[in-house]
Amino acid sequence: MEKSVINFLKEIVIEAGKIIKENFNKSNTVHYKGKIDLVTEIDIKVEEFIKKRLETIEGDFNIVAEESFDGNLPDDKVILLDPIDGTTNFVHGFPFVAISLALIDKDYECGIVYNPILDEIFTAESGKGAYLNGERIFVSKTDNLEKSLIATGFPYSSVVENIDKLLKLLSNVLKNTRGIRRAGSAALDLCYVAKGVFDGYYESNLKPWDVAAGKIVVKEAGGEVLNIEGESYTFSDKFIIATNKFITKDLLRLLNGV
Amino acid sequence: MEKSVINFLKEIVIEAGKIIKENFNKSNTVHYKGKIDLVTEIDIKVEEFIKKRLETIEGDFNIVAEESFDGNLPDDKVILLDPIDGTTNFVHGFPFVAISLALIDKDYECGIVYNPILDEIFTAESGKGAYLNGERIFVSKTDNLEKSLIATGFPYSSVVENIDKLLKLLSNVLKNTRGIRRAGSAALDLCYVAKGVFDGYYESNLKPWDVAAGKIVVKEAGGEVLNIEGESYTFSDKFIIATNKFITKDLLRLLNGV
Repeated sequence: MEKSVINFLKEIVIEAGKIIKENFNKSNTVHYKGKIDLVTEIDIKVEEFIKKRLETIEGDFNIVAEESFDGNLPDDKVILLDPIDGTTNFVHGFPFVAISLALIDKDYECGIVYNPILDEIFTAESGKGAYLNGERIFVSKTDNLEKSLIATGFPYSSVVENIDKLLKLLSNVLKNTRGIRRAGSAALDLCYVAKGVFDGYYESNLKPWDVAAGKIVVKEAGGEVLNIEGESYTFSDKFIIATNKFITKDLLRLLNGV
Repeated sequence: MEKSVINFLKEIVIEAGKIIKENFNKSNTVHYKGKIDLVTEIDIKVEEFIKKRLETIEGDFNIVAEESFDGNLPDDKVILLDPIDGTTNFVHGFPFVAISLALIDKDYECGIVYNPILDEIFTAESGKGAYLNGERIFVSKTDNLEKSLIATGFPYSSVVENIDKLLKLLSNVLKNTRGIRRAGSAALDLCYVAKGVFDGYYESNLKPWDVAAGKIVVKEAGGEVLNIEGESYTFSDKFIIATNKFITKDLLRLLNGV
């Protein structure tokens, strides 16, 4: 099943990506989930398109998708879908948007992150490595925080409540690394760690569908995905850290030093 | 002269862009100008290539270029060149890198910002509008800070000295806008304001070659480029603000509210 399932999912995601690409740089109606948490008609259209196509998948998978989540997250036999990771970017025309799709079964998992604007598709299956557009990718070899480029995000829900803590972390990271990038898509931030562009990444208050696929891609590229205690990241953790493995200890120290 | 000069410059920049593209995602030798201010052999190669080609330009222009600046900045008859704006991105393989070239004469100016990785060339001439890959572009129409996406940068020299002030500004902006993006190239941040992706942008401690071309592009796209007092930006100003014009008053208030 394994080989066919990822190809089946890839086909669906690439087709769905056309909907995003066609509507990029156009005025789309914006709805508000929170003060600044946006959803467009295209998020919903892409989710519905993919869910419909997933109906034919073998096995009895639960589909957990951002725009229709009912609060129930099964442990396995689950497909996690974010139809547009980076909706704010999509609305403004900043080219970091992606479909994020992960399939998690008892003894098999795979992740797909597709940016249809830059035409980059990241894929990974358990034990089989990570790929960008079919070519094997690996995390960076940087073992020095001062030479590291770190990605982060500022999730909407935490901006106002925890802003002082957030800025203290940012200050620690700015002072001790080569720089910060904030591109606005957690799924792509993770894949850029996998590709060796970013040496590390951290963020808090993310949802399972934001990170499920990217987590598999990072691990298969040789990196690691952890919580703030340095343990393997689970969906119930508030804080996520991804690294190339070599800067883990130093980055954890920085992020815990508040 | 006007029509031919920008075409002449565009040709040079596009050819020089090939050097960047060929060396992107490769290991390039990195040198350090400061603790985290990088320069690669490719920065120097691109600058030398362009300077050589500019020798044939008519008129007696002074060429001011990042990697060979002698401290003397003339008012007019000047060409300002940043061979790679976003050198850290170039070193790490993050696709926001650009050649920035501006020509400033008494009664004529033009700016070119070329990202050879995403194949985006922004061009503008005084009084003739701004263009992306030959198509006219305009700033956004957003007049509400809460719906604005704002770009910023953390310049190396100011990171350690002014970090508290920097973070206070960031906190003000995060709390009152739709979000922050930090992509790592001032020239492209300005062009993305011109294109309507970002509604505003601010940064401090930049050099003339970082912003000279982008400033022309923003102005020709209908936006404005100011200092922290809200006056027209000049190269001697420490702080630069670019907006779509509609959010200027509110953004200035935020950035002065420290």
